Amino acid sequence: MTKKVLIVYAQPEPTSLTRQFVEATVQSLQEQGHDVLLSDLYAMRWKATFDEQDFPCRADLGRLSFIKESGHAYSTGRQTDDVVSEQQKLLAADAVIFHFPLWWFGLPAILKGWIDRVYAYGFGYGYKGKGNLYRYGDGILKGKRALLSVMVGGPEADYSPLGINGPLEELLFPVTHGVLFYPGMDVLPTHAVYGAAHLAKTEIATEIAVWRKRLEQLFEEAPIPFRRQNGGDYKDNHILADHIAFGKSGLLAHVDTSDT
Amino acid sequence: MTKKVLIVYAQPEPTSLTRQFVEATVQSLQEQGHDVLLSDLYAMRWKATFDEQDFPCRADLGRLSFIKESGHAYSTGRQTDDVVSEQQKLLAADAVIFHFPLWWFGLPAILKGWIDRVYAYGFGYGYKGKGNLYRYGDGILKGKRALLSVMVGGPEADYSPLGINGPLEELLFPVTHGVLFYPGMDVLPTHAVYGAAHLAKTEIATEIAVWRKRLEQLFEEAPIPFRRQNGGDYKDNHILADHIAFGKSGLLAHVDTSDT
Repeated sequence: MTKKVLIVYAQPEPTSLTRQFVEATVQSLQEQGHDVLLSDLYAMRWKATFDEQDFPCRADLGRLSFIKESGHAYSTGRQTDDVVSEQQKLLAADAVIFHFPLWWFGLPAILKGWIDRVYAYGFGYGYKGKGNLYRYGDGILKGKRALLSVMVGGPEADYSPLGINGPLEELLFPVTHGVLFYPGMDVLPTHAVYGAAHLAKTEIATEIAVWRKRLEQLFEEAPIPFRRQNGGDYKDNHILADHIAFGKSGLLAHVDTSDT
Repeated sequence: MTKKVLIVYAQPEPTSLTRQFVEATVQSLQEQGHDVLLSDLYAMRWKATFDEQDFPCRADLGRLSFIKESGHAYSTGRQTDDVVSEQQKLLAADAVIFHFPLWWFGLPAILKGWIDRVYAYGFGYGYKGKGNLYRYGDGILKGKRALLSVMVGGPEADYSPLGINGPLEELLFPVTHGVLFYPGMDVLPTHAVYGAAHLAKTEIATEIAVWRKRLEQLFEEAPIPFRRQNGGDYKDNHILADHIAFGKSGLLAHVDTSDT
């Protein structure tokens, strides 16, 4: 069945490995018969900084509260056009793929600014005006799939379970869990290419083939089993319940590995 | 003894809690006799996006490689003035304090873009042209202190050891360890104020008093005991040595708690 897939990417150089992956993604999805939506953040000259310009019709001109103004702009239809357009793409998409180079163990600022601005109050959080009721598995993007495709400069060893940088999936937990799962998306395990600046042409071809193969399972692959807030694992929507928490700690306590 | 302290902050609203904390920091440091340097990112209209404009004199006009152009611009004195100015402030400072609201479990884009752009190749990484030799405890900022002061919208329970968001210090590990400790800074435990949007005036006064008290120990407080890459805990500068690794996993394996 034809699906819609949004590709959000943050790399301005057309010959970069990131962009080669974007091209491979577009080709693969089109070959599968899917519709592709693109957000080429550098080409769009995406405004990274979330500021007073995001609120052309202020609720309170005397004091800039981001939460208050964001909720006001969203609920009254007074957001800027660029933000509205990205929200509509997200709502239209069945899956979202993010392509970016890992900069300082996180998102490039232009992509972080896409999150900061597009995730309005009432959209990315505070869904249905119900505070924190709909989050972590429930929310406006529930049922959609999300996948990070990351180009990493350093060697894989540095991101291995005992590697000096820390494990990649834990470094990216604020994004996979905090940004993508938060408003309800099913998040697939991050796809990383390591030593990205030093790959030979044949290695690049191999990496792209592996990626294309993976994309064929985009709608079948099992997501990271993050625990749903409203699935019974948390007390009062806040803290892991005693029967779950035993012996667990840290970020990965929020991944349910009981079936694996 | 008089010290220099750089305050980098990312909140445009003068009456915000973040800015009240910035004012308290300035006052406290001046009362202690220290010199204060300020980087008010919103007022400076800091350019968040790292892009081709950062390299007015390109090494390679045909292909934009951020690492290559960053190293070229830094080593040949062709960086943009705004980046040079921030690097000079960092080099002059004995300590750096970052004030920001936590947005989507990370830095606001404008502050992430400060890192992306100021941490040039040869400065933030690739120090002395020696690849990864100087990092995680060694580097151009070695011996300086760093401290995050974060305003958090959600309740503290959500960031507690088993809280649904994950523990704050792990969510911020990519910043404390990956950004600040990486080029050699001693990083103090993160200072967080939770439920920041809902504090009563008296609660704010209490929080500021606690913060000011803490600042009096800025140069005495023990930093997070991150393991130094070159301190004997890592094999070949990459993976935790066997005698350290036993039973450890995840981000916190890189914190040495053996003395505590």
